[in-house]
Amino acid sequence: MKILKIKDMTSSIASNISNAFIDFSQMTCSVVAVITDQYRDGEQIVGYGFNSNGRYGASGLLRERFLPRINSASPDELLNDSGDNLDPFKIWNILMQNEKPGGHGERSVAVGTIDMAIWDAVSKIAEKPLFQLLADDFNEGNADTSVWVYAAGGYYYPGKNILALQDELRAYKDLGYKVLKMKIGGASLKEDMDRIEAALKISGEGNLCVDANGRFNIETALAYGKELKHYNLFWYEEPGDPLDFYLQYCLAEEYGYPLATGENLFSHQDARNLLRYGGMRADRDWLQFDCALSYGLVEYLRILDILKEFGWSKRRVVPHGGHQMSLNMAAGLQLGGNESYPHVFQPFCGFADEIQVEDSLVKLPNVPGIGFEAKSELFSVMRRLLE
Amino acid sequence: MKILKIKDMTSSIASNISNAFIDFSQMTCSVVAVITDQYRDGEQIVGYGFNSNGRYGASGLLRERFLPRINSASPDELLNDSGDNLDPFKIWNILMQNEKPGGHGERSVAVGTIDMAIWDAVSKIAEKPLFQLLADDFNEGNADTSVWVYAAGGYYYPGKNILALQDELRAYKDLGYKVLKMKIGGASLKEDMDRIEAALKISGEGNLCVDANGRFNIETALAYGKELKHYNLFWYEEPGDPLDFYLQYCLAEEYGYPLATGENLFSHQDARNLLRYGGMRADRDWLQFDCALSYGLVEYLRILDILKEFGWSKRRVVPHGGHQMSLNMAAGLQLGGNESYPHVFQPFCGFADEIQVEDSLVKLPNVPGIGFEAKSELFSVMRRLLE
Repeated sequence: MKILKIKDMTSSIASNISNAFIDFSQMTCSVVAVITDQYRDGEQIVGYGFNSNGRYGASGLLRERFLPRINSASPDELLNDSGDNLDPFKIWNILMQNEKPGGHGERSVAVGTIDMAIWDAVSKIAEKPLFQLLADDFNEGNADTSVWVYAAGGYYYPGKNILALQDELRAYKDLGYKVLKMKIGGASLKEDMDRIEAALKISGEGNLCVDANGRFNIETALAYGKELKHYNLFWYEEPGDPLDFYLQYCLAEEYGYPLATGENLFSHQDARNLLRYGGMRADRDWLQFDCALSYGLVEYLRILDILKEFGWSKRRVVPHGGHQMSLNMAAGLQLGGNESYPHVFQPFCGFADEIQVEDSLVKLPNVPGIGFEAKSELFSVMRRLLE
Repeated sequence: MKILKIKDMTSSIASNISNAFIDFSQMTCSVVAVITDQYRDGEQIVGYGFNSNGRYGASGLLRERFLPRINSASPDELLNDSGDNLDPFKIWNILMQNEKPGGHGERSVAVGTIDMAIWDAVSKIAEKPLFQLLADDFNEGNADTSVWVYAAGGYYYPGKNILALQDELRAYKDLGYKVLKMKIGGASLKEDMDRIEAALKISGEGNLCVDANGRFNIETALAYGKELKHYNLFWYEEPGDPLDFYLQYCLAEEYGYPLATGENLFSHQDARNLLRYGGMRADRDWLQFDCALSYGLVEYLRILDILKEFGWSKRRVVPHGGHQMSLNMAAGLQLGGNESYPHVFQPFCGFADEIQVEDSLVKLPNVPGIGFEAKSELFSVMRRLLE
């Protein structure tokens, strides 16, 4: 058994949206295909992976460093001890050969992208959906049959702000979502509070999240917190710079209600610092690390070990990114749920074609691997790698 | 005035050395040339930059994201308000357009490399050595005329360990260095202590640094600390993972003597966390951030502002990397000194050709820019970008 070739390409994952920090008009992602010499039902097994939105494709890093390391390993070094499947942990170690500690960005995307494709291949070789493989190997066989999802959006609409925002959120409710998330920090505090009040009319109390995308300094984060206290929000997300653990700590003290963060922390070391220093509370806060941006599932398992060490339940984890990889992890490792972007970052984000959101829950298709083949628009992009 | 073109190439900065974490046999660096339309004495002004050892070249990132942003800016956006020079701060903001917060690695190298070349061009256009420009613009005109340097090396020599180590260190003393640094963490504690005792015979007490390159867990860091207490070392460097601020804090408590770290922290946010959480002491510890790996001098000035906020003198800063850029910053901003690798990472590291180390001090050549033209072997590599 061996990997015959790994191919990569850069795809657009552009969107005409902006958050408080960046616009997504130039956003790209890398797509990789791990082509194996294995066949099932006459079909060659190929594992696919991509990086989720927000951090750009990693083609240069893939081609300069990470794919050559796989290519120069002997095939046996990439297999598990019984030789009947690829070994994502051994492959991870080979990818990270001669990489210094610290500096967790960009390369974490390159490795996360390859790691996703490896797990897709591994579960296809094992002829199981990934969530089932994860449940069997890491969760005593327990998997959730459906995963809680929330709808992320709530963008700014210059000129027609409130009504367009309400229309957008209403559309998410019509799709079956209960908890809805909107952007803040791209307007004045007063304007944002008006938007929040308008959004609450659609979501209902207790069902609205707000996301500042790391925009605020400590004064602004606290000033928003003081106002947001009145709204019984589901969560208040990424108020300040992702590495400003002191801001996070102060806000937890002052604001008191649920906070969420973690999508811009890309290693178990950074995740551990958030838990050590960020004042996050295991009974109410939410952690949003995204495996596709942070060295993949192999590193994610380390992050989950750290959570346990710090007394956190895995149910407090709701990954960023809205992709099927995190959905499989949420089901197979019994995390808290998964993000969903109903209208943007297509075709990479979203669920299998026949899957409907019902009462804010989604099921997973019963197909080997991550399930990309059951999402036709995405799979038609991925198949281009084999042409 | 405008930038006509920015070119880049990848060079080998390989070395047959290893530290406790990686080997450097595949190490690369990016070299960039910022070609302007300005002439002095009939010579076209070109600014050069490169990234220092340890984190690999960034060609993919440069070509995919950072150079296109400069190329698509209008020339005026890159100039200072009086229009008589490039503006490194405005250029930095353009480079970091649509980059999300957090994830400080790799892209910090790409930006640091361009930033170096921009400052080289800026000081050539201003017809000053960079250290003089920095002194004039950011240090009330004060510059040091010579900079303290120490010799980094002290490698492992399988099979002929002690004697070869002593020979290496003796050679550094013969070159004019007083303080010498050696690797630890690549052997057993007992063997490392034997090496340290042998090294002290060459350096003399108080003149030896040891560097674990982030290899130790907390138990090992403390176990080494317990033994190292007896040796009156100049510093004990990077004991654990660069983001394990808790380890650093515990070691400061237990070990007590001078510690050094920072070469693998690549942003002002990470530097601030080290000062907030790492237990570093402003009266004895050393900070080693390297501008060429961490978004350049523009970001370094932010780091120096944070130091001031936390009550630290700039004299506690001795940058990693052994390159002329940090040497200019050390002189012009009056930092504590600069690293030097007498025998490795050539031709990128080291000083101008005619400069000798005397009593552990080096002077800087009086040429416009960073001084690459006064280092002939390096400049001959850089000139290839213009062919």
